[in-house]
Amino acid sequence: MTSARVAARQTVADLGEFGLIDRIKGMLPRGNDRVALGIGDDTAALKTSPGMLLLATCDIQVEGRHFRLEHISPHQLGRRSAAINLSDIAAMGGSPTYALVSLALPQTTEVAWVDELYRGLGDELGAHGALVVGGNLSGSARDVVIDITLMGEVAEPLLLRRDGARSGDAVLVTGWLGESLLGRLALERGLDSTTPAAARVIEAHLTPTPRVREGQAVAARKGATAMIDISDGLAADLGHICSDSNVGARLVAGALPVSPEAREAAANLGVDAIEAALHGGEDYELLFTCPADEAERTAADVVAATGTPVARVGEIVRGEGIELVTSDGSRSSVEPRGWDHFATVEGGLKPPST
Amino acid sequence: MTSARVAARQTVADLGEFGLIDRIKGMLPRGNDRVALGIGDDTAALKTSPGMLLLATCDIQVEGRHFRLEHISPHQLGRRSAAINLSDIAAMGGSPTYALVSLALPQTTEVAWVDELYRGLGDELGAHGALVVGGNLSGSARDVVIDITLMGEVAEPLLLRRDGARSGDAVLVTGWLGESLLGRLALERGLDSTTPAAARVIEAHLTPTPRVREGQAVAARKGATAMIDISDGLAADLGHICSDSNVGARLVAGALPVSPEAREAAANLGVDAIEAALHGGEDYELLFTCPADEAERTAADVVAATGTPVARVGEIVRGEGIELVTSDGSRSSVEPRGWDHFATVEGGLKPPST
Repeated sequence: MTSARVAARQTVADLGEFGLIDRIKGMLPRGNDRVALGIGDDTAALKTSPGMLLLATCDIQVEGRHFRLEHISPHQLGRRSAAINLSDIAAMGGSPTYALVSLALPQTTEVAWVDELYRGLGDELGAHGALVVGGNLSGSARDVVIDITLMGEVAEPLLLRRDGARSGDAVLVTGWLGESLLGRLALERGLDSTTPAAARVIEAHLTPTPRVREGQAVAARKGATAMIDISDGLAADLGHICSDSNVGARLVAGALPVSPEAREAAANLGVDAIEAALHGGEDYELLFTCPADEAERTAADVVAATGTPVARVGEIVRGEGIELVTSDGSRSSVEPRGWDHFATVEGGLKPPST
Repeated sequence: MTSARVAARQTVADLGEFGLIDRIKGMLPRGNDRVALGIGDDTAALKTSPGMLLLATCDIQVEGRHFRLEHISPHQLGRRSAAINLSDIAAMGGSPTYALVSLALPQTTEVAWVDELYRGLGDELGAHGALVVGGNLSGSARDVVIDITLMGEVAEPLLLRRDGARSGDAVLVTGWLGESLLGRLALERGLDSTTPAAARVIEAHLTPTPRVREGQAVAARKGATAMIDISDGLAADLGHICSDSNVGARLVAGALPVSPEAREAAANLGVDAIEAALHGGEDYELLFTCPADEAERTAADVVAATGTPVARVGEIVRGEGIELVTSDGSRSSVEPRGWDHFATVEGGLKPPST
């Protein structure tokens, strides 16, 4: 009896974001045969017209939790709010189409601030071919809240899911890892933001680049077996692919795309750049798998189409769990944890292993 | 110079919800030819497959602004959050299909509370044929935020807009008006909630009934010229139809559907029941216009299909503005104001005109 009562008092912080998603998934009615992808994925895929899938995703940004008004301009906030949704459509290989913008604002919000927010939203969405077609404006008792729903489309055979990775596949990632977390820490700790290293990681945090064309290039090759965007962190998001595909993975520390600027910022902040790359999250890079013999050509195609670097960071293996191989050949297991939205603290990044 | 600076300091409360929507509409790129209805309407209508329109709407509920946790159970809050979105699809004559649920929760939120919220959401959406297919879970620094995006569909020829009302049309409304505001006031002022009158208006406020089948019945007749749901208040929402259709309207006070319970609750609260019906808002009834000679049959069809009463409350006239005719034949102009989401106070409902 006592344990039942204790269980009923469980909070969302106890259960964690993914525990809560699983619980909700179990409670609600299952999808019908028009739902190609439903609860549990970042983006829903719906069969609404023959051969094409309608994609739909949403992401919320709450003041004090996802951003602080003293750290981000309204134009940057607009771009960021759009980018994190564009990234979810990118992870399906899709083309963004229409956005709904839901905004809750305290009464004292300046109109000029709202103007700039929408300019940022419009700039980022427009750069990827999406239009704002509606939404909702509302008052808020205290905090600014921005929730965007973004729709998109993808030809049915091109949809990339999380559950197709196979043992032997290569693991690839676009762009650079760890910078967003380092940028956030730099802002929170008041690091001198005028150095090139700090400026780069702060920009990566405030206005991440959604890899829309990169996702389309990967999907167009038809060789990839799974794809996801890195919002929770490489380890956590690779963990999603592994658990959904019933496989494990091996990552090579030296292959992780960590920029010199990220190393410098990490050193100044007293954190390990590899840890930031593994667990930082909010980088909004694409992580995908493909047969090993197609890895090089796939990476080359994406680079040719977009100019964005692609790194081969490891391989999919039988079994479960993620292993990290360091330069001295030692192997350690990597917890598939990242930025859990209900965690009280961020899971304690280790100091640099110097 | 000074005036430009003052203008730049203008707040969203100064501009108001609709002023802000107009401003945003002017700033963002216009829709393409696939956008049948874009910014400015509660629901976007998009041509995604031949003959059918994809409908998409979103509505946010922020703790402290739209609800207080001490007044509403999580099951009721789930039902309410779903209902206000279902109402927007209903106003297009559409069928709800898929929902995305975006939730921001403080870490201390109990899992049992979240369970009940989703049960309420699922119950209300399921009753109208819609499925939750995705969404987003996030932490919140302080307040609970629930933002739902609801999709739906309607055959292209059946879409009902706001801009088709013509002089001579009858003005009709489903159900009952003013109860939601009275319910909110009853809760805020701690009115004895056990009397049948108080219980009814409080229920109308906490769990409004979206008129989905009613909207479909109106659309199926193909005779209606304009439709909207009453979220801002009869006067404000009729004002939207009038300004979009370039017409005016005349309302008959004695024809407004005010229940005996609403009259009793209004008397106990010291407010005018007719004022509440005109300006209260959040009733989520449907307001529509149709040629005068079809009004009776249209109303009868809706009643036959759904059991919901339909009242003929006035007529569309040339010119602009809304006029109210009272039982003694006197005419007064009605301000098209309602519940403005950025207004500091609610616009001062008059005491009863006894």
